[in-house]
Amino acid sequence: MGMGRKGNSYSWLSLCLLGSTIVNIYFLSDLLCNDGKVKVKVSWSEEGAAKAEEVAAINCSNHGRAYLDGMINEDGKPVCECHTCYAGSDCSLSSPDCAADADSGDPLFLENFWMHHASSSAVLISGWHRMSYNFPGLTAISEVLDSHIRHLHHVAKNALTEGKYIVFGGGSTQLLNAAVYALSANLSSPASVVAAVPSYPLYKTQTDFFQNKNYAFKGDASLMSNASYANTNVIEFVTSPNNPDGNLKEAVCKGPCVRAIYDHAYFWPHFTAIPSPADEDVMIFTISKLTGHAGSRFGWALVKDKEVYNNMMTYISVAEMGISRETQIRALQLMKAILRGDGKEIFDYAFEKMSDRWGKLSQIFSKSKRFSIQEIPPLYCNFFDKVRGPSPGYAWVKCEREEDLDCTRVLREANIIGRAGSKFSVDDRHVRLSLLKGDDDFNLLLNHLEKLVDEEGVPEAVSSF
Amino acid sequence: MGMGRKGNSYSWLSLCLLGSTIVNIYFLSDLLCNDGKVKVKVSWSEEGAAKAEEVAAINCSNHGRAYLDGMINEDGKPVCECHTCYAGSDCSLSSPDCAADADSGDPLFLENFWMHHASSSAVLISGWHRMSYNFPGLTAISEVLDSHIRHLHHVAKNALTEGKYIVFGGGSTQLLNAAVYALSANLSSPASVVAAVPSYPLYKTQTDFFQNKNYAFKGDASLMSNASYANTNVIEFVTSPNNPDGNLKEAVCKGPCVRAIYDHAYFWPHFTAIPSPADEDVMIFTISKLTGHAGSRFGWALVKDKEVYNNMMTYISVAEMGISRETQIRALQLMKAILRGDGKEIFDYAFEKMSDRWGKLSQIFSKSKRFSIQEIPPLYCNFFDKVRGPSPGYAWVKCEREEDLDCTRVLREANIIGRAGSKFSVDDRHVRLSLLKGDDDFNLLLNHLEKLVDEEGVPEAVSSF
Repeated sequence: MGMGRKGNSYSWLSLCLLGSTIVNIYFLSDLLCNDGKVKVKVSWSEEGAAKAEEVAAINCSNHGRAYLDGMINEDGKPVCECHTCYAGSDCSLSSPDCAADADSGDPLFLENFWMHHASSSAVLISGWHRMSYNFPGLTAISEVLDSHIRHLHHVAKNALTEGKYIVFGGGSTQLLNAAVYALSANLSSPASVVAAVPSYPLYKTQTDFFQNKNYAFKGDASLMSNASYANTNVIEFVTSPNNPDGNLKEAVCKGPCVRAIYDHAYFWPHFTAIPSPADEDVMIFTISKLTGHAGSRFGWALVKDKEVYNNMMTYISVAEMGISRETQIRALQLMKAILRGDGKEIFDYAFEKMSDRWGKLSQIFSKSKRFSIQEIPPLYCNFFDKVRGPSPGYAWVKCEREEDLDCTRVLREANIIGRAGSKFSVDDRHVRLSLLKGDDDFNLLLNHLEKLVDEEGVPEAVSSF
Repeated sequence: MGMGRKGNSYSWLSLCLLGSTIVNIYFLSDLLCNDGKVKVKVSWSEEGAAKAEEVAAINCSNHGRAYLDGMINEDGKPVCECHTCYAGSDCSLSSPDCAADADSGDPLFLENFWMHHASSSAVLISGWHRMSYNFPGLTAISEVLDSHIRHLHHVAKNALTEGKYIVFGGGSTQLLNAAVYALSANLSSPASVVAAVPSYPLYKTQTDFFQNKNYAFKGDASLMSNASYANTNVIEFVTSPNNPDGNLKEAVCKGPCVRAIYDHAYFWPHFTAIPSPADEDVMIFTISKLTGHAGSRFGWALVKDKEVYNNMMTYISVAEMGISRETQIRALQLMKAILRGDGKEIFDYAFEKMSDRWGKLSQIFSKSKRFSIQEIPPLYCNFFDKVRGPSPGYAWVKCEREEDLDCTRVLREANIIGRAGSKFSVDDRHVRLSLLKGDDDFNLLLNHLEKLVDEEGVPEAVSSF
């Protein structure tokens, strides 16, 4: 019996040891291996990492998002920030009759891309990361980010970077003014700043706002005859592809006193065919329309002339002593994530997405006689190495009926918020609709547009019921 | 014997089980408990966290630092960025004869504070963090950061925030100009911008640079007689405590057309006694001199008047559509780290550090007849609730010998780099020496100063050997 008990104990012990060993192996393998890679143990960074994951795990029904720096509820947890037309603590309540907001160019169509690249795009910033005013060499610019940007242009085949200087700015926004400033410095008379209409409103807003002695906004570039600017210093903004209509553009003004600033915010395979890599004197890009990170306020200019480059650098330095180090390391991490593999995935993804949206929108408008949208011809694309169709960031809608002078109002009455043509310095028969926002916003826009177009055949007195 | 073997196996098994169980308990406790808190397991954030720790572990001999976005060596690892006067792949080679650079106000004296608060200050930014142009409510400002800033002023007892608006800017730098812009809008005639000398150079640099039609820099506030500005719109920069000399200041110009911008960059217990909480109409602060994060380019203005606030917000919006979300979340994390416990630790730490530096420097200068430094009287401090001595960010050195007209040159010949008095709109008998940099820089400054002062008694012909 003693023997029997010992035998039982023996078997029991063996089983326990086996179990314990299996648990040990589990822990050990978990500690050491993760997808075949050796896992580094994290210590001081774990609290920050865990908090980010905790917030990411908050359920907002895929109609909203909780953020680390969001408002806190009574349990001390960040609350869901719901998409337009969604509500409730988990954003599960929808209001289908709420207006579709297609006003802003908020590029949230890329959010899902980043959710699917969570690991490669996450960056942990330590408390002591780059506290100084300067990077080595007393610059305010990350050399590594500079080289990643050049590499990315090489992959996208949209701009030649060799022999050009790079200036970082607070979004393309800040660089637009820095460029005007630099190009108007040391002129004999104030420069006239122009842009061919329809044109992005900020050029005028910004140039008017800063009340600078060296330049003034003079409106539509197309209205400037050769005669009038033969002896005038002209700075022309060329937006290519254009905001609002998505068409590729060239400078309208020509002559010895004309200098162009190419706003290439949308010059990526996402939104346009790239006929050939751009090689202009001053070209401005932004991460906002490349990766979708509008909130980062990060842009860069490619500049050929050293004096213009120096002037722009001085502008950024005097304005705010260079661009935030947090912005620069985040931008770098996003570029690194994009450039894994052959670096083409984001362009394929963004083109598919925007192309699909344009297809759906075109189909709706093709049934309409009341509304039309811009035509963008198929073009050979240097990036895809083939002819490709349109995938613009905006629809440029025109109300065709004589009485529909205020097209924004017509759409607003159909529960659609667009941006009026007059904001782009043309008539209000035109409205810009953003195709860049998240799926919830875009789908609501499609629904409301479809309903509006379907009502065209119905007499107004009936349709108003 | 069979029995014996079984007995041995039994003991052996028992021992193994005990060992295995201990290992299990270790793993379990490691998984579940960390300083008494339940540990959350990290997944997608781990790669980013591990990379940050890997870089932090690179040995730079405490005379430099490696950064996540630093240049890469042939092994693909970021290289050490060495402090001035240190070199080598691990920054272990010192050059004691190299010049002490006390020119810039780079606030690296706080770096060690953040190394010691690694866990609470680390922030992990996900790839999809705040991609939008806007926070909820269509603002570009984090409400949570706003409330943390107010809380921090309450702890520091240095400013009243109730009833005031907060504007975020790209460092105090951007806010200085935004404030001039806002205060000069809608005036009948251009405003004269002034500052009492010695004054921070940027006021003039920036005001001159932007060539705005609404204002112009007019120099020293003290030179403006009451008569001359009775009918003139005046905007006075008041730097308190002053940069370069550390003294508390009040506006010099008085009158109905005078408006003041209080630059309170150094109005923290680190650098000055706080006689009472400031309550001016327009006050500007920066994280740079509070936490030492100059590279973040983050400042804020406390503004009483709603119209001035609106004008400043429009300025930031037109200039760059709000401040980077990465900057805002990092600033929030740093504020949260500061505010743990009673929130006073950073002030105690920074005061001790700056006070100690001032003590050491004063001791050296007390032995000199050739050089003097500014006097800062002991003052009652609202934060410490007692009279306290000086701990300024800069030494304002004067060369007392008649022939030493160019004091910067005198110091430069003794291997010390300072900033010339003329940069602060006074004579070059004065030089500013920064006391804000890291320990390596400060210690080198002390060494070179001590040597210079020790040589005073020695005839020049001898000392030059």
